[in-house]
Amino acid sequence: MVRIVTSESNSVVKLAKRLRDKRGRDKEGAFLIEGANLLTEAQKSGARITHIFLREKEDSGTALGGAPEIDTVMLGGALFDEIADTVTPQGVMAIVRKPERELRLGEVDFRNDGKSLVVLDRLQDPGNVGGIIRSAAAAGFDGVVSVADTADVFSRKVVRATAGAIFRIPIRFAPDGEAVLEYLRTHSIRTAACTMTGDRSYSEAALAGDVAIIVGNEGGGLSEEFLAGADERVYIPMREGVESLNASVAAAIVMFEKKRQEAIC
Amino acid sequence: MVRIVTSESNSVVKLAKRLRDKRGRDKEGAFLIEGANLLTEAQKSGARITHIFLREKEDSGTALGGAPEIDTVMLGGALFDEIADTVTPQGVMAIVRKPERELRLGEVDFRNDGKSLVVLDRLQDPGNVGGIIRSAAAAGFDGVVSVADTADVFSRKVVRATAGAIFRIPIRFAPDGEAVLEYLRTHSIRTAACTMTGDRSYSEAALAGDVAIIVGNEGGGLSEEFLAGADERVYIPMREGVESLNASVAAAIVMFEKKRQEAIC
Repeated sequence: MVRIVTSESNSVVKLAKRLRDKRGRDKEGAFLIEGANLLTEAQKSGARITHIFLREKEDSGTALGGAPEIDTVMLGGALFDEIADTVTPQGVMAIVRKPERELRLGEVDFRNDGKSLVVLDRLQDPGNVGGIIRSAAAAGFDGVVSVADTADVFSRKVVRATAGAIFRIPIRFAPDGEAVLEYLRTHSIRTAACTMTGDRSYSEAALAGDVAIIVGNEGGGLSEEFLAGADERVYIPMREGVESLNASVAAAIVMFEKKRQEAIC
Repeated sequence: MVRIVTSESNSVVKLAKRLRDKRGRDKEGAFLIEGANLLTEAQKSGARITHIFLREKEDSGTALGGAPEIDTVMLGGALFDEIADTVTPQGVMAIVRKPERELRLGEVDFRNDGKSLVVLDRLQDPGNVGGIIRSAAAAGFDGVVSVADTADVFSRKVVRATAGAIFRIPIRFAPDGEAVLEYLRTHSIRTAACTMTGDRSYSEAALAGDVAIIVGNEGGGLSEEFLAGADERVYIPMREGVESLNASVAAAIVMFEKKRQEAIC
């Protein structure tokens, strides 16, 4: 049963618009996804989808509704495009409940007891945040920890950059670095902080086993608490001093080195 | 001597506008860069800068002109913003001559005899092309080969994504894969092609020494000539079948694995 909505003042239209901002997403406990691929990923993962929006006259998406608890809404083209973030939104969007979970002391709720984690320390670029989540899922990491002031993982740019991985790897939230370090110590997970001024090359550090890799802000690097509190500070050797790597690329290099070391163990 | 231009029909304004398209860049043999950082990189690298544009009432850039052969032009704000691609163009742009060079048989014109090369086989995403150039420079690679139909490395999105590396690593152009393979064979450079269906894990392949790493198109992967003609096809092991990596991230993982193997040799 698909209903047709063309009014700006319709309540689900207003809800969808509120989800474009972090404040709206936090308040509603939900986020917006765009495109058939992400919707399929959300469905496969068992995420709770509350609404599906189809663009009037697109027929690609009509088979995607179905479940009776999902409110499936056909939107007028102009209204759909106004809500959509991307230029070619493929005629389908959905509202998904946030699986938001706080990092809790004494509780290990990552896959595989959280042996392989990546910690996002106030990264700002949505492409980097989404890219690291994608690479962490591909590398088979057990979870991602987002520290307060990191770009919202439920923003549409981040969700898009994850290429669906947001539905395939557990993500937990921490109020600050101290909470993360305490959690990791409690669970005997070692910490390797990525920094240009590290004291050991990433490939010489022992990364196999229960290790969390900590990645810092694009401009400012790691916060003081991680720099001081990590078990090890690692760097990626580069040509001369002038070169630098994109934060998402640097994180992936260290994550896959961990996997490489584990494969040869 | 700075001249002030406010007319749309001024010849340098028209030139700058033409450089927004690949056709214009090819015809003029030049490209546009935006921002003080890229201009500084261009100057340090010895690239031939023909024009510098300053945004009216910005004083940050006025010290950047100077060389008498550079035409330094102050543009009205609206005109400057119309030409600029970025939202915050930092008040300075420049036109730089393209250092375009064809890949030539019998001639080794990369750094270090071209021991470490990366080949871009029809990548389409400017962020990926720029990101790979940036990572290649950071990893100390000797050069980049762009095969026809790869996104233009002189587009502003690519240039921006290189973070200045476009001025720090030699880039050569090839009409097709066969020309690249012939060049590499002639110079005894082995080839490792990155593909999800590779026959050896990237970390188990011998990548040290004279090796070119070949990276394929985001959607379609490598072209048949590289798949068939490469000495080795390597893959990056990932969790299950559903996961994938961003092309720029995958390239960086293999490039830095080459550097890691060389460091322990």
